[in-house]
Amino acid sequence: MFFSFEGIDGSGKSTQARLLAGALRQRGFEVVEVREPGGTDLGERVRTLLLDTEAEIRPRSELLLFSAARAQLVDAVVAPALNKGSVVIADRFFDSSTAYQGFGRGMAGKDWMRDLHAFATDGISPVRTYLVDLPPQIAADRRQDRAADRMERADIDFYTRVRAGYLRLAQEDAGRFTTLDGAETLEVLHTQILRDALSVLNRRS
Amino acid sequence: MFFSFEGIDGSGKSTQARLLAGALRQRGFEVVEVREPGGTDLGERVRTLLLDTEAEIRPRSELLLFSAARAQLVDAVVAPALNKGSVVIADRFFDSSTAYQGFGRGMAGKDWMRDLHAFATDGISPVRTYLVDLPPQIAADRRQDRAADRMERADIDFYTRVRAGYLRLAQEDAGRFTTLDGAETLEVLHTQILRDALSVLNRRS
Ligand SMILES: Nc1ncnc2c1ncn2[C@@H]1O[C@H](COP(=O)(O)OP(=O)(O)O)[C@@H](O)[C@H]1O
Ligand SMILES: Nc1ncnc2c1ncn2[C@@H]1O[C@H](COP(=O)(O)OP(=O)(O)O)[C@@H](O)[C@H]1O
Ligand SMILES: [Mg+2]
Ligand SMILES: [Mg+2]
Repeated sequence: MFFSFEGIDGSGKSTQARLLAGALRQRGFEVVEVREPGGTDLGERVRTLLLDTEAEIRPRSELLLFSAARAQLVDAVVAPALNKGSVVIADRFFDSSTAYQGFGRGMAGKDWMRDLHAFATDGISPVRTYLVDLPPQIAADRRQDRAADRMERADIDFYTRVRAGYLRLAQEDAGRFTTLDGAETLEVLHTQILRDALSVLNRRS
Repeated sequence: MFFSFEGIDGSGKSTQARLLAGALRQRGFEVVEVREPGGTDLGERVRTLLLDTEAEIRPRSELLLFSAARAQLVDAVVAPALNKGSVVIADRFFDSSTAYQGFGRGMAGKDWMRDLHAFATDGISPVRTYLVDLPPQIAADRRQDRAADRMERADIDFYTRVRAGYLRLAQEDAGRFTTLDGAETLEVLHTQILRDALSVLNRRS
């Protein structure tokens, strides 16, 4: 059972992913948490490249590097965990590429993007994706206290495109996405997410 | 005007690429030499990842990492050089991915691979590709004196598939490929390649 969290930087994804993982573990589930890019030796090395504020990276390279890290993560961690029956919780997955590199950087048609994701993930998709939606300015304020990495140096216009991209993806794939109002408190969001995740887990088992 | 050199490791590509570059410079051409993976800051960092003998890299990640380095190389070096009217000589280009990751690692259909290459290269293709063909055992003997990188640790079976893949590509795209017998001497090969390259350059100018 595979859950992913999506949203712009500072929206609250990592917080909610952690809370969900903890709550499911308390209820006896085996939970594997992964983050993108990263989660494998190779992925962490690619992450270092991608987030390095000194690096000059072209949009097409950026998309391919994220996809390379994802392919490694799927083979080394996600697929084995799912095969063992664990719950996998991903802090970002392929929707991040569609939103950031596709909508944000204004790149490539969606069909091509879908083929690339299917290749990189070997066809594995989250059963449920939590989109934590938040206006870019509020998300930027929440990030004030942390050093901006290369991706986070983008301006409000970029994040406005990414946010709109996410909302469009959620609309087009309403069966998989659950959109949440990121302006709610941690606790309210967690309660909504946990209730939904448990209903998905019960339905499937 | 864009030329690429292809062949298995130890076949003599780098030697011939260097000789061709020198001969064209002597004749007054502006020549830019590039190697794959590499040729840009990002590309060299990806090269380090890819050739690291300690790294565990899945076939799909490998293909995507090579493609990421290629996209950067095209945007930062190849396209600008071609726009300026320079001759570009590449020691490996996208055919290496088709031969190594496609035929060698037994991955993916060719249509998908072609789309990926078109995306990574932004549609830029060599006008002529020199395939230096050599039996894997002879190529391995020629590599005896250099430390094997991660790619070069592959066995003879792998190189046999890669070589067969290259020969098939050359057959399917006979207008672009020129296949050479790598068992010939440096000088014989160089003479053949230079004569062909000059005829291509004259035809186009
Ligand atoms: N619902 C929320 N309300 C207020 N602040 C929040 C909320 N969720 C997260 N935060 C805070 O916002 C910042 C970014 O949260 P984080 O989970 O790291 O976001 P992301 O992983 O999406 O970048 C953190 O300081 C976090 O404590
Ligand atoms: N035609 C040739 N005949 C004999 N040895 C060669 C020939 N071409 C190259 N070599 C030698 O073989 C080795 C591999 O050549 P190199 O150009 O580095 O191959 P590649 O770049 O294809 O790996 C080098 O030691 C080189 O001097
Ligand atoms: Mg986070
Ligand atoms: Mg070489």
